[in-house]
Amino acid sequence: MRTKQEYLDSLVKKHDNLYLDGQIISRDHESLKAAANVIGTTFDLAQDPALAKITTAKSHISGETVNRFTHIHQTPDDLHRKQDMTRMYCQKVSQCIGRCMGVDAMNAINCVSYEADRANKGQTKYHKNFLKWLERVQKEDLVGACAQTDVKGHRMKRPAEQDDPDQYLRVVEKNDKGIVVRGCKVHITFASVADEILVLPTRSLTKDEGDWAVAFAVEADHPDIKQVLSPHNLRPRGKDFKRGFDWGFVDSYVIFEDAFVPWERVFLCGETQHGGICALLFALFHRHSYSGCKPAVGDMLVGLATLAAEVNGIEKTPHVREKIAELITITELGYAAGFTASAKGEPKVYIPGVGKMDYGPGACIPDSIYANVGRCITGEAVFKEQQILCEIAGGMPATFPHEGDFLNPETSELLKKYVNRSDAMSVEEQIKFWMLFFDYTNSGASGAIAYGAMHGGGSPIMEQIAIYSQYDLEKRKDIVKTLAGMDVTSGTPGDHGV
Amino acid sequence: MRTKQEYLDSLVKKHDNLYLDGQIISRDHESLKAAANVIGTTFDLAQDPALAKITTAKSHISGETVNRFTHIHQTPDDLHRKQDMTRMYCQKVSQCIGRCMGVDAMNAINCVSYEADRANKGQTKYHKNFLKWLERVQKEDLVGACAQTDVKGHRMKRPAEQDDPDQYLRVVEKNDKGIVVRGCKVHITFASVADEILVLPTRSLTKDEGDWAVAFAVEADHPDIKQVLSPHNLRPRGKDFKRGFDWGFVDSYVIFEDAFVPWERVFLCGETQHGGICALLFALFHRHSYSGCKPAVGDMLVGLATLAAEVNGIEKTPHVREKIAELITITELGYAAGFTASAKGEPKVYIPGVGKMDYGPGACIPDSIYANVGRCITGEAVFKEQQILCEIAGGMPATFPHEGDFLNPETSELLKKYVNRSDAMSVEEQIKFWMLFFDYTNSGASGAIAYGAMHGGGSPIMEQIAIYSQYDLEKRKDIVKTLAGMDVTSGTPGDHGV
Amino acid sequence: MRTKQEYLDSLVKKHDNLYLDGQIISRDHESLKAAANVIGTTFDLAQDPALAKITTAKSHISGETVNRFTHIHQTPDDLHRKQDMTRMYCQKVSQCIGRCMGVDAMNAINCVSYEADRANKGQTKYHKNFLKWLERVQKEDLVGACAQTDVKGHRMKRPAEQDDPDQYLRVVEKNDKGIVVRGCKVHITFASVADEILVLPTRSLTKDEGDWAVAFAVEADHPDIKQVLSPHNLRPRGKDFKRGFDWGFVDSYVIFEDAFVPWERVFLCGETQHGGICALLFALFHRHSYSGCKPAVGDMLVGLATLAAEVNGIEKTPHVREKIAELITITELGYAAGFTASAKGEPKVYIPGVGKMDYGPGACIPDSIYANVGRCITGEAVFKEQQILCEIAGGMPATFPHEGDFLNPETSELLKKYVNRSDAMSVEEQIKFWMLFFDYTNSGASGAIAYGAMHGGGSPIMEQIAIYSQYDLEKRKDIVKTLAGMDVTSGTPGDHGV
Amino acid sequence: MRTKQEYLDSLVKKHDNLYLDGQIISRDHESLKAAANVIGTTFDLAQDPALAKITTAKSHISGETVNRFTHIHQTPDDLHRKQDMTRMYCQKVSQCIGRCMGVDAMNAINCVSYEADRANKGQTKYHKNFLKWLERVQKEDLVGACAQTDVKGHRMKRPAEQDDPDQYLRVVEKNDKGIVVRGCKVHITFASVADEILVLPTRSLTKDEGDWAVAFAVEADHPDIKQVLSPHNLRPRGKDFKRGFDWGFVDSYVIFEDAFVPWERVFLCGETQHGGICALLFALFHRHSYSGCKPAVGDMLVGLATLAAEVNGIEKTPHVREKIAELITITELGYAAGFTASAKGEPKVYIPGVGKMDYGPGACIPDSIYANVGRCITGEAVFKEQQILCEIAGGMPATFPHEGDFLNPETSELLKKYVNRSDAMSVEEQIKFWMLFFDYTNSGASGAIAYGAMHGGGSPIMEQIAIYSQYDLEKRKDIVKTLAGMDVTSGTPGDHGV
Repeated sequence: MRTKQEYLDSLVKKHDNLYLDGQIISRDHESLKAAANVIGTTFDLAQDPALAKITTAKSHISGETVNRFTHIHQTPDDLHRKQDMTRMYCQKVSQCIGRCMGVDAMNAINCVSYEADRANKGQTKYHKNFLKWLERVQKEDLVGACAQTDVKGHRMKRPAEQDDPDQYLRVVEKNDKGIVVRGCKVHITFASVADEILVLPTRSLTKDEGDWAVAFAVEADHPDIKQVLSPHNLRPRGKDFKRGFDWGFVDSYVIFEDAFVPWERVFLCGETQHGGICALLFALFHRHSYSGCKPAVGDMLVGLATLAAEVNGIEKTPHVREKIAELITITELGYAAGFTASAKGEPKVYIPGVGKMDYGPGACIPDSIYANVGRCITGEAVFKEQQILCEIAGGMPATFPHEGDFLNPETSELLKKYVNRSDAMSVEEQIKFWMLFFDYTNSGASGAIAYGAMHGGGSPIMEQIAIYSQYDLEKRKDIVKTLAGMDVTSGTPGDHGV
Repeated sequence: MRTKQEYLDSLVKKHDNLYLDGQIISRDHESLKAAANVIGTTFDLAQDPALAKITTAKSHISGETVNRFTHIHQTPDDLHRKQDMTRMYCQKVSQCIGRCMGVDAMNAINCVSYEADRANKGQTKYHKNFLKWLERVQKEDLVGACAQTDVKGHRMKRPAEQDDPDQYLRVVEKNDKGIVVRGCKVHITFASVADEILVLPTRSLTKDEGDWAVAFAVEADHPDIKQVLSPHNLRPRGKDFKRGFDWGFVDSYVIFEDAFVPWERVFLCGETQHGGICALLFALFHRHSYSGCKPAVGDMLVGLATLAAEVNGIEKTPHVREKIAELITITELGYAAGFTASAKGEPKVYIPGVGKMDYGPGACIPDSIYANVGRCITGEAVFKEQQILCEIAGGMPATFPHEGDFLNPETSELLKKYVNRSDAMSVEEQIKFWMLFFDYTNSGASGAIAYGAMHGGGSPIMEQIAIYSQYDLEKRKDIVKTLAGMDVTSGTPGDHGV
Repeated sequence: MRTKQEYLDSLVKKHDNLYLDGQIISRDHESLKAAANVIGTTFDLAQDPALAKITTAKSHISGETVNRFTHIHQTPDDLHRKQDMTRMYCQKVSQCIGRCMGVDAMNAINCVSYEADRANKGQTKYHKNFLKWLERVQKEDLVGACAQTDVKGHRMKRPAEQDDPDQYLRVVEKNDKGIVVRGCKVHITFASVADEILVLPTRSLTKDEGDWAVAFAVEADHPDIKQVLSPHNLRPRGKDFKRGFDWGFVDSYVIFEDAFVPWERVFLCGETQHGGICALLFALFHRHSYSGCKPAVGDMLVGLATLAAEVNGIEKTPHVREKIAELITITELGYAAGFTASAKGEPKVYIPGVGKMDYGPGACIPDSIYANVGRCITGEAVFKEQQILCEIAGGMPATFPHEGDFLNPETSELLKKYVNRSDAMSVEEQIKFWMLFFDYTNSGASGAIAYGAMHGGGSPIMEQIAIYSQYDLEKRKDIVKTLAGMDVTSGTPGDHGV
Repeated sequence: MRTKQEYLDSLVKKHDNLYLDGQIISRDHESLKAAANVIGTTFDLAQDPALAKITTAKSHISGETVNRFTHIHQTPDDLHRKQDMTRMYCQKVSQCIGRCMGVDAMNAINCVSYEADRANKGQTKYHKNFLKWLERVQKEDLVGACAQTDVKGHRMKRPAEQDDPDQYLRVVEKNDKGIVVRGCKVHITFASVADEILVLPTRSLTKDEGDWAVAFAVEADHPDIKQVLSPHNLRPRGKDFKRGFDWGFVDSYVIFEDAFVPWERVFLCGETQHGGICALLFALFHRHSYSGCKPAVGDMLVGLATLAAEVNGIEKTPHVREKIAELITITELGYAAGFTASAKGEPKVYIPGVGKMDYGPGACIPDSIYANVGRCITGEAVFKEQQILCEIAGGMPATFPHEGDFLNPETSELLKKYVNRSDAMSVEEQIKFWMLFFDYTNSGASGAIAYGAMHGGGSPIMEQIAIYSQYDLEKRKDIVKTLAGMDVTSGTPGDHGV
C-alpha cells in the first residue's frame, strides 16, 4: 500500500489535461491541494494498525492485505467494515473522503462483467479483464473515480432519441484493439486527483441502445480526455487560526474526445440489460457508502450545533435540545439503515419485474430497500440540517470578521472583546470555532456541499423510485385484503421484515 | 401453552371490576370481544409450528418452551425474534397485538429487581420473588399488562410536591405480609383482558420519594382495583361484508383503592434510583417493541394506500408513488432502527451522568439510541401517514354508505353502480376495501389509534430527551474541535458507530 | 327572513327520500338533529341587530334586506362581510356552518348563466330564470346546498370516455318542458337538511361533452332523487355535562334516477366552455368561503390548545407556545389571504390560456390567486394541526372516561380526584373541557371533519394546479432574464403584486 | 432628491473608517461596488415618473416630494405603497434593496421620541430634534442604516447583568453638549455605504437599565466609529456573460469607541419603557418591509425554478409544478399578510400586558399580528425554498464551468455542446441563466443570503414570540368555553378577524 507522499508525487507526473477558468493547470495547482490532501488521508490512516481492521482487507484475488477502497466485499461483515471505515474517514476530514466512488464502481463492475460473460457463454472476457485490472489497482493502491452521470441533453428523451447522440457517452468505433468513445460525464467528483476513472452507464437501456451499454477503465490523464474543473475550497487561512484539516473537493466535466480504450480495459460493451443493472448496482453500492459518510457529516453537524449552543449559552434550552436530537435521529437512522442493509447483504440483486435473484460471482451486495431508505432520509434532510444550524448559531457565522481583522492591531482587541460569548472557552478558541462553522455553512463551498449531499448517489426522488419499484407491495396488499375479508388472489411472500 | 379458548374461558371467571359509562360489566361484554380476540391470537399462532421460531422461546428458568411474550431476552437473537414476532402478529390483527406491554415490563423488572437486591446486599428478595412469579406466568401462559403512566396531577410538580400525594401511585402502608398501594394509572391498554398487571414507576425519583419507587404484580381483577374503560372498536358488521379480522383495543384507568399486595408479588419498594431506571428500562424495551408493531402498521398503511391508488386508477401517478415510497421509508427505517438496536444489544444500561454500565443478571437489553430514534421517527409520522392516506383516497372513506344501504334493495344496485371505480376488482371487493379503509381512518377508533401511536411508549419528545441525554455528544464535539484546530480537552471515545 | 323554528317546521313536511343504513328516515330523525341545529343558527343570528351588518345584505334584485347566504356579492366590501360572517358563524357552531355551499353556487351560476345567454345571443334565458329562482330563495330565505362532485368512475377517463356514461351526472333527455338528468353526486354536505340543491359540473369539459354541461336547481326532496346519508355526530351527552352547542354535519350521495327538471330551473345546458368555468367559479367562491371558516376552526383549535396547555400546567413551556403560535400563523395567514382576495375582487375571471377577463353581469369575484393560496395553506395544515393538539393534550382525550362514569357513585369521586390537574379551574369544568376536546379529536366524527377540511372545496393539489396555471409566470421569468442579462422576449406585465 | 451619481460621489468623500481582512479601505473599494450599486438604484428609479406614486411621497413636515425611503407613513395607503415599492425595487436588484432599515428606524423613532417627550411632560425635546434631523434627511435624500443588534455577550443574562456592560451599547457619559456611547452593533447591513446610522435598543429593558435605553443618529463615518466589514458579492464576470444587475450586500460590525453624540441627534436617553417599545416598533416596521422584499425574492425564485424546469425539459412534470406552486404560495401569503397588515394599520401599538393603545403622533403603524405571521412564514421557508431550487435544477449549478472555460478555444465549443439542454433557448442564454442560478444558490454569497433571510428583522422564533404574546388568546378560550358549555368568566372581545 502506498503512502500519502507517494500518491502526491505520482499526481504531478501525470499528463496535464485539467482546465480551470480558461487555464490549463497541473495537478499540484493550489486549487487541488485540499482535494489531494483528502485522498492522501486514505493512505496515511491505512498504515495505522489500530484502524487496520476497517481500513484494510484481504484481497480475494491475491490473498494480500489491500486498502479496503480497492476490495470486493465478500461477506456482510465486509459491508459492515466498509460502512464503519467510511464513517471514520469522513469524521477525520469533515466530509466526503472521495474514494468511495471508485470502490463502489469496482464492486458493481465485478458483478456485471461476470454476468455478461455468463450470458455471452464465454464469448467475452470482461470479468477476467476486470480482475486483472483490479489486481494491479490493489497492488499499486490506485485511486479510482467513477464517471456515471451523462449530460443527458433533453431529459424527456432516451439516449438513442437525442438529436445529438453524444449526450450520453457512447462507443463510436470498435476495432481489434479496442473501442473509441465519445461523450461527457459531469459532476465527477475527485476525478482530477484520481489515477483511474471507471466509466459506466447512467441508466437502464433498451435493446437498440447497445452503443451506450459500455463500462471501462481509463487513466485519469488520458490524452483524449479533458477535465473542466469546479474546485470547492474553504477560505484560505494563515497560520494564526489554522484549521485541523483543510478539506476541499473538486468536480469535473470529463470530456471524451473520441478516446481510445483497449479491450483489456473494457468490462462491458453492448449488453444492454447488464448495462442497466450496472447503473443500478453502482447506485446501490454508492447509496450504501452514504450510510457511512452521511452519519459522519451528521456527527460534525451535531458537534457544530452542540458547541454553537454552548458558546451561545443556550445549550439548556429545551427546543435547542430537540433540534440537536433531530440531527442525531437523522444521523443514526441513516447509520441503522446501512447497518441493516449490510447485515441482510447477499449475492443477489433485484431485477425489476423479476424479483431478487442470484447475481455475480458471489460477492456480497447490500440489501437495496435498506440502502435506499437510508440514503433517502439523509438526502432529504440536507437543507433542514442547514436550517437547524442556522437557527442555533444565529447570524454569527454570516458576518464573522475575516482572519485579518483579528490580527490587525487597530481592530484585534476590539473584536475579541465583542465576539466573546463564553467563559468556558477562550476567545481564540471561539474564533476558530466560528470560522469552521462559517466554512461549512457560509463559504463558497457550502452550496456545492449541499448540492452534492442532495444529489450525489442519486437524488431522494431516485431513491423513492427504487424503493417503490423494488418493494414487495403485493405482500402488503395481501395483508390488507386478508384483514378486509377480501379474496387474496395474489400473494407472493415478501422478503423484507418477516 | 394455552389455547385461545382456554384464555377466553378464563376471562369470564374473573371478578367483575370493570366500569363502562356508568355500568359494571363482565369480561365477556360485547365491547371487549374484539380486544379479547386480539389477545387470543397470541395463543392460536403460538401453536403453529411454522411460526414457532419467533412465537416461542426456551425459558431460561425452566428450560421449557414458552410463549415468547413471557420470555426474558437472553441474546441479540432473542431481540431480533421478538421484533419479528411483533411485526408478524400485528400484520395479522392490523394494529397493536396487546401483549408487548407485559413482556417489556417483565424484562425491565427482571433487571431492576436483580440490581436492587444486589445494592441491598441480600436484604431483599425481589429478584427471587420475580422469578418465581415469572415461572408461573410462563407455565400458565398468562397475559400481562403494564401499568406505568400516573395521572401526574400538576405536571410541573414532582410526585412528592403534589398537593394530593396520590397523583403518583404510592405505598401507603407496609407490614409483614405486604404493602398497601393507592393511586391511579391511566391509558393502561388491554388491562381489562389481561391476567396480571405489572405496576412500575413512571419517572425518575429523588431520594425522598421512596414511597413512589414501587414495582409489583397484581391480578387484573384484584378486589381493590377498579378499571374504568375506554373501548375502541370498529363499526359492527353483519355477515355480508365481514372483515377478515375484527380488531379492537381497550384502555383503562386502573384505580388502586388501598390495594394490598403481598411481598412475594413486590419486586421493588423504596429503592429510588432503581425505580427511575425501571421507568427508563420499561420505556426502552417498549420502544424496541414499537420497531416491530409500527412497521406492521406501516405494512397495512402501504397496502391501504397502494390498493386505494389502484381502485382510484391513479397508481401510476408519480407523486402517488412518492407518497407510497414515503410510507415505506418510515416503515423500514423504523424496522432498521430496531434491528440495529437488537444487533447491538448487551446486558448494559445507560445511566445518566455515568454512561453505559453493566446492569441486571445478564439478560440482553437493546441499544437505547437506536431503539429511541426508531420509535421517534414512527411516532412523529403518525399524522403525516394519515394525511397521505387521505390524499390518496380522496373523500371516499369519509362519506362511504353504511353496510345496510348496500343491502337495502331500494339503494343497493344504485350504490354499487356509483361506487364502482375499477375493472380489476369486483364492486363487492371494493366495498369491503373501502369499509376497511374507513375503519382505520374515519371510525370512532381512529382518533384513539393515532393518539396511541403518537404517545404510546413515550411521545416523540420523550424519545428526543432520551436521545439527547444519552448520546455521546462529547465525541462529536471533539470531532469538530479537531477539525477546527481547537484544543481537544475532553475526549471520551464514543460507543456508537465507529 | 325566516326563524329557526320555521325552518325546522318546514323540514318535516318534506318528502322522505333519505336513506340511512338500510332504513328510510324522515328529516326529524335523531341523526339529523345536530345538522339542522347548525343551519338553524343562520336564521337565529340573522335576527340580531348587532350582527346585521355582516349577516344580512340588501338584495340587488329586490332592494330588500335578505340573509347574506342568499346574496350576490356586488363589491369587495360584500366579500369582506361574507368572509367575516362566515368566521363569526363558524365560531358559534365550532365548525362548518353549512350554508356557504349554497351561496357560493348561487354566485357562480349568477355569472355563468349571464355569460352563456350572452354567448347564445339571447337564444337562452338562463340568467332570467336564475334571477327569478333567486328572488324566491331570497324572499323565502331558503337553504341551498351545492351538488358538484361526481362519482367519476375511472379517474383517468373523461366523462364521455367512461364505460358507464352516468359516472358524471348528465342530461339523458330534453323536451319542451325541461330536462331529465341521471347520475350521482357525492360528499354533498347538508343536502339532506337543505331546501334546494344547486347542481353544477365538476370539471372542465370538451366540446363533445355537452350532455354533462348542465347546471340547475332542484328541490332537495325531489321524488326522483334519493339521498344516502353519512351523518357525522358527536357522542350524545346527558344534561350533566351538556355542551354549549351540539354541532354535527351530514353528507349525502345524491342519486338522480332520471329526475325531471323544468326549464325555469335550468341555468346551463350544453354550453361546455361555461360549464367548465362554472366548475372553476364555484370552487373559487367556495375557497374564498374557506378563508372565513378555516380561521374560525383555527380559533377553536387555538382555544383548545391554549386551554389544554393551561389545564396541563405547561402553558409557559416555550415549545408549547411555539406550537400555539404555529396554529395562529396558519389561522391568520388563511384569513389574510381571503382578505386580500376580497380587497382585490372585481367582475373578472381568469380563463386558462387567455388571462383575466370581464365575466358576468358585474358581480364581484374574489382574486383567484389569493383565494387559492389561502385555502391551500389551511388544507395542508389539517393533520399537522391535529398533531399539535395531540402533542399538547397528551393521551388524555383518547382514554377519557365516559359521562356515565362521572355520574356513577362507585366511580364518580375517584375519577374526579384523578382527572383533576388544575387549581385554576373546577374539576367539573375540566371534565367538560376534555369532553369537548375528545369531540373534535377522538370522536367518530373527527375523521370526517379532517377529510372534509382537507378535500372540501378542492384538495390542496387542486389549489396548487389553480395557482400554477393562473399565476403570471411570464413576469417572473422576465425578472430573472433581466437580472441574468438575457433577452427578454416574452414580457406581459403581471397583475399580482406590483 | 439626489441622483445615483451624486450619491456615489458623496461616498468617496467620507472619512475612512472601514476595515476589511486587516486593511483599512475607502468607500470606493471594489468589494463595496455592488452594494453601492444597489443603494444607487433607489435614486435612479425615484426619478421615473411612472414609478413616482410608489417611490416618492409628500413629506408631512415640509409638504415637499421626498424619496419614500425617508417618509413617515401617514395612512394605510402609505403602508400599501411602501410594501409595493419594496417589492418593485427588490425585483429590480434581485434581493435586499438596503434602504428599508433606515426608513423603518425613522418610523419607529418618530413614534417613540414623541411618546417619551409626552411622558417627560416637555422636559425633553427628542421629537423636535428628530423632526429637524429628518427634515434634513428628506431634503438631502440621505441613506439611513439602522444599528439594532447588540453582540449580547452571555445570552442568558440581561444587559445590566453582563460581566462586560458594553455587550449592549450604552451611554457611558452625559454632558451639556451630548452623550458618549460605547458598544458594538453587529450584522448592520449596508451601514458602510449609508450616510447616517440610526442606533436603537435591541430588546426590552428594566427600570435600572436606563443607560441602555438610548436612540440616536450618527454619521456613518463618525471618527470614533469603526466598521469591520463582511462584503457578500457574486463571482466577478467579464463582459461576455455579463449580468443584468450586479447585486451584492455588506454587513458591518459597527464599533463605538466612546463616540460623542450631540443632544440634537439624541432621540431617547434613559426612558426604559419606550426603549423597549422602540425595539419592538422597529421590528414591526421592518417585518412589514419583509412583506415587500420576500415576495420579490419569491418572484425571482419562482422565475429561477420555472426557467430551470423549462431548460431541463421537465416543466410539465406534475410534481415540479407542485413545487413551483409551493414557492408561489409562500410568496403570495407573505404578500397577503403584509397587505392585510397595511389595510388594518392605525396609530396604535400593542403594549404587552395592556393591549393595543394609541401611540405616537398619529403616524400609521401596521397591524402586528399580520406583519408577524407574514414574516414568519417567509423566514421559515428560506431553506425549504433552496431545497426546491436544488431539486428542480439538479447538480447543474454546483459544477457549472467557470466563465473562462466558455471563452477558452480549447474547451468552449465542447462545453457548449455538452451544457446545451434546450431547443427553445440559445446555449449562450442557457449559460447566462445557469450562472445566475449559481449566483443565488452556490456562490460565496448564498450562505449569507440565507442567514439574512432567516434572521433579518428577527428570526421566526422572534415572530412566534410576538404572535403568541400579542394575540387575543382570551377570545379563543372563550369560544371554546362557550362551545363546551363552560362558564365564560374571562371574555374581552378580540380585535382580529371578527
